[in-house]
Amino acid sequence: MREPQVVPLDGLPARVTVYEVGPRDGLQNEKAIVPVEVKAEFVRRLVASGLTAVETTSFVHPTWVPQLADAEALLAALPAYDGVRMPVLVPNERGLVRALDAGVREIAVFGSATETFARRNLNRTVAEQYEMFAPVVAAYRERDLPVRAYVSMCFGDPWEGDVPVPQVVEVCARMMALGATELSLGDTIGVANPGHTRALLTALAEAGVDLGAVSVHFHDTYGQALANTLEALRCGVTSVDSSAGGLGGCPYAESATGNLATEDLVWMLHGLGIETGVDLPALVATSVWMAEQLGRPSPSRTVAALAPRG
Amino acid sequence: MREPQVVPLDGLPARVTVYEVGPRDGLQNEKAIVPVEVKAEFVRRLVASGLTAVETTSFVHPTWVPQLADAEALLAALPAYDGVRMPVLVPNERGLVRALDAGVREIAVFGSATETFARRNLNRTVAEQYEMFAPVVAAYRERDLPVRAYVSMCFGDPWEGDVPVPQVVEVCARMMALGATELSLGDTIGVANPGHTRALLTALAEAGVDLGAVSVHFHDTYGQALANTLEALRCGVTSVDSSAGGLGGCPYAESATGNLATEDLVWMLHGLGIETGVDLPALVATSVWMAEQLGRPSPSRTVAALAPRG
Repeated sequence: MREPQVVPLDGLPARVTVYEVGPRDGLQNEKAIVPVEVKAEFVRRLVASGLTAVETTSFVHPTWVPQLADAEALLAALPAYDGVRMPVLVPNERGLVRALDAGVREIAVFGSATETFARRNLNRTVAEQYEMFAPVVAAYRERDLPVRAYVSMCFGDPWEGDVPVPQVVEVCARMMALGATELSLGDTIGVANPGHTRALLTALAEAGVDLGAVSVHFHDTYGQALANTLEALRCGVTSVDSSAGGLGGCPYAESATGNLATEDLVWMLHGLGIETGVDLPALVATSVWMAEQLGRPSPSRTVAALAPRG
Repeated sequence: MREPQVVPLDGLPARVTVYEVGPRDGLQNEKAIVPVEVKAEFVRRLVASGLTAVETTSFVHPTWVPQLADAEALLAALPAYDGVRMPVLVPNERGLVRALDAGVREIAVFGSATETFARRNLNRTVAEQYEMFAPVVAAYRERDLPVRAYVSMCFGDPWEGDVPVPQVVEVCARMMALGATELSLGDTIGVANPGHTRALLTALAEAGVDLGAVSVHFHDTYGQALANTLEALRCGVTSVDSSAGGLGGCPYAESATGNLATEDLVWMLHGLGIETGVDLPALVATSVWMAEQLGRPSPSRTVAALAPRG
């Protein structure tokens, strides 16, 4: 299998954490229920391909995301891998009880930078979301365990249009003040560009947020995700969210055609001489296998290029 | 229709020429013959959408590219638009006669940076290709008319693998010495990355090539085309090749899934506040129309996101 040619570029990090969201963010939008054993095998193969951060599932209420109703069963089917982060999304205190019962060692909460999406996705105002997250974050931080805070709609909102940078910075600062150990800046509808990426990251740094604790989460709706990622790396970001095979998208966002594909990301990073620990052929094989389970091809260009013919 | 949010980024040009290759490079790989009236309408719509450089067809021998056997008829069906470049590919002296007879005011020759591709595509060595191009370039330069020189396989070759930067610089310098007024650096199999892009452009500038006379031609095989384009713009390039709707690819290159889509490019450029003169909704409508003519959807992510539903 062809591997990328390596030509480094000045000003980029030596190593990047690829934060894999396929099992949670990717699968949550699949209408047909994926058997728990397939999900477990997916996670096992992702870990075997060298990924060191795999968001595994969500303790969201099964009414809202039936696909992830099997969270406990999935976690029970998986070992604790040395050196592999396996965070689980925890939306609220009910989810927190489940996470603690399941012995989850890292969690993520999912917030919004905009009022409209907060109301539609969380049934809360932006201000009210902090009250919902506070006890969840506190419970993990009291145990000295890490908590990621997603901030969605950081670049644009399907109902509100442009989202002002200071508004996003305010939400991020509040999430960090709650005790979050990592932020994930979500371009939920894929409208970010490299200029907007730099503007937001610069403003965050000026507000005192350590960019070493920031991950970027771009969607490839308009094909911009990798260009935005390149600019984010130049700004000092060293963690990037992506989804194996490009699985997933945002069900509430018009035309959100999906997450950045992990393979497209890894191809660029390895070509730039940036270490990820990922075995690209093994990852491509995993996405080809998963595409077979789902019955449709991966939208990843790199998977399409490297997958075996026929 | 959603338009990109504008957030500029320092160090990029204020204006970029989008060099549209869809009618030639895009259509040449279509197996089913597209009627000349459809081609003419395609070009008319592209020009109406504000594109100012549209490579219209090729005077290649019809045996090799039957799709473009109607070059004279297509040109006869099109007006001479004020301020619009309508170059035609001219492979050799037989093509030159046809170009002059048709009154073509700008041409392009198509060379190779590698021996294997020169032999396979041109039936020449790299050294012999200059002999083939010399009279063609001279005929146009004597008339004070512009000549673009494509240099294909600038970043990688499906048979030779990595292509050394000095080898590409040597071919580019020879093309300029012949009298070419513009270079187009082709990543024919889509393996370039931003580091390689900068390395090549830096070496070209050091060799005395004016980057204002250089266009970049990236393929999106591994999803890297826009990230590479961003880096090229940072290096001082102000002309980018792309294909409306992402039409086309390289028939000789394994897994070459196609040219950078003009819509994905324009979305990024406009978002960065870079002028192109292109009316994006009109261009998307053109690619949707062309996809209907060809009977399959555009691979452009931006077209998919912005096309009317159903």
